[in-house]
Amino acid sequence: MRIALDAMGGDHGPTPNVHGTRLALEANPDLTVVLVGDPARLEPLLAETAVPAHRIELVPATQVVEMKEKPAEAIRRKPEASIFRCWQLLAEGSVDGLVSAGNTGAVVAGGLKTRKFLQCVHRPGIATVMPTAKGRCVLLDVGANVFPKPRHLLEYGVMGGVFARHMLQIERPTLGLMNVGEEEGKGHELVQKTYELFRTSPLHDRFLGNIEGRDIHRGAVDVVVTDGFTGNVVLKLCEGVFEFIMGMVKSEVIHPLPHDRELAAQAARQLVGKYHYSAFGGAPLLGVDGVCIICHGSSNDRAIANALGVAALDCRLKINEKIVAELEQLPAAVED
Amino acid sequence: MRIALDAMGGDHGPTPNVHGTRLALEANPDLTVVLVGDPARLEPLLAETAVPAHRIELVPATQVVEMKEKPAEAIRRKPEASIFRCWQLLAEGSVDGLVSAGNTGAVVAGGLKTRKFLQCVHRPGIATVMPTAKGRCVLLDVGANVFPKPRHLLEYGVMGGVFARHMLQIERPTLGLMNVGEEEGKGHELVQKTYELFRTSPLHDRFLGNIEGRDIHRGAVDVVVTDGFTGNVVLKLCEGVFEFIMGMVKSEVIHPLPHDRELAAQAARQLVGKYHYSAFGGAPLLGVDGVCIICHGSSNDRAIANALGVAALDCRLKINEKIVAELEQLPAAVED
Repeated sequence: MRIALDAMGGDHGPTPNVHGTRLALEANPDLTVVLVGDPARLEPLLAETAVPAHRIELVPATQVVEMKEKPAEAIRRKPEASIFRCWQLLAEGSVDGLVSAGNTGAVVAGGLKTRKFLQCVHRPGIATVMPTAKGRCVLLDVGANVFPKPRHLLEYGVMGGVFARHMLQIERPTLGLMNVGEEEGKGHELVQKTYELFRTSPLHDRFLGNIEGRDIHRGAVDVVVTDGFTGNVVLKLCEGVFEFIMGMVKSEVIHPLPHDRELAAQAARQLVGKYHYSAFGGAPLLGVDGVCIICHGSSNDRAIANALGVAALDCRLKINEKIVAELEQLPAAVED
Repeated sequence: MRIALDAMGGDHGPTPNVHGTRLALEANPDLTVVLVGDPARLEPLLAETAVPAHRIELVPATQVVEMKEKPAEAIRRKPEASIFRCWQLLAEGSVDGLVSAGNTGAVVAGGLKTRKFLQCVHRPGIATVMPTAKGRCVLLDVGANVFPKPRHLLEYGVMGGVFARHMLQIERPTLGLMNVGEEEGKGHELVQKTYELFRTSPLHDRFLGNIEGRDIHRGAVDVVVTDGFTGNVVLKLCEGVFEFIMGMVKSEVIHPLPHDRELAAQAARQLVGKYHYSAFGGAPLLGVDGVCIICHGSSNDRAIANALGVAALDCRLKINEKIVAELEQLPAAVED
């Protein structure tokens, strides 16, 4: 597998990208990483990190999209930026997939500009994997589509289900629709119409209906479907609540312990590591023709390495072909 | 202050309502609680709880709205239910406010049916108080208005600000708009238009712009404004994440400790108590002419007692008069 890495992307620049590449190459014997970025900055880093030279390629790109830059402007002003070069490599067929910890909006915009949607897809969405009391679940969309139509959400259910089945090995993933109450008829027009679409779709026997905010982490369903506005708030809120509570646990539970303080602090660090976003590594952009894994801006070495591994696995398992095959089973979309 | 309590409301029936009444009467010397419910169930409980008889009144209501009942149906089929009787008492002027842990939709529906909106209010909203790394913040709306207009959100900013200033003693509350990114222009049409309304309103100098999910618990702003769909998901998600993480902390951090296990478990229980919803006690329904505090369905004695205290304080401080005075400063609403 050949995966392009936006080596300039992310809050910390090239360092975690290069370190993550080394880790990913160790873990994935069939992987070649195509690092896209500024050779003057990447070459010394690659040398000092001892990345095996025959497992990588370097593609020059001197422009970088900044984290706060508006995607539409970036695509106009910096067509040669590292993230857009990654998409071009994919379009040319010289890589199988790409990974970026850069500006999420620019990653999505680059994909929409250079790639077609997968057959039967009306709008791509970003999926994320979250820990639950029962294991893991897939939540989508988390920000690609902030004002979707019911049909988009139905397709997210299909795409999230395929991802959960093949990438997370959940044999028969159940689906839930994020809402403000469990009962049918709850919420605004979008969720009411989407509920009805799911109920009458080929997914109906895996659709468990509406779920509430507190159900996600209880592991009530394997795939949580929501609009990109709500999903983005959910994703970032989880990060904030986790940070807040673990801070309180450290100062109010662990710090005062007379004997076991160090032991408890170590266990807390392990717990943070286990549920940190870096444990899965990235969020797949589903519905675009091509494999694209979007990483958190503050990704560390482990997150980049895991994202490269996820991208390679996604290619190996031909997730996109499986998505198209399932979407073809849906009845044709009607205007809503 | 005379506060009506929906004594039948909540997952646990009359018991926490009666126990909470006793605690609230101890803490609030000027309080009289009017318990509305089934005398046959309440009288024995009141006797065994030793609630001072001269500080309470009993108003009979034999019907109860169930937690899963549809509000519109309940209001038609059970006009004499305890929660609707509470609103009638408020309409008659025989109480100053009301508290209910019953079906939230029915509490709101009862208010909309029997009471007018406060002057200048276009839609009521439910506010909730959340813990943050810096203290507390007010989040609204959390479910009364799942598809609001920008003007509604502007008014929520005013109402939340008055509540934060007078009830939480935050001298000059800052405001933020829940969104998917900090930059102006982010998100869907509702938040884009709302951003512009805030920016050009008399609140502009306290409006810090868009905030993201992770900013809430960092205490980035004192008042978080959002639509009732997102707010409801946020509120319940926080509950779920908190429960999930504290469960992990118990099993993975505290349980393996050889010496300090009991001490750590006790500190964890205190932490849970401190950030439990019962610490504040209830969520005010703002914008309706009358004081109404809505409690979590699973409220315990402490939550009911605190909610009665909040209702009494809200009346004492004449929060509604202050809300109207501030709303009068807004420019007139234009159609959007």
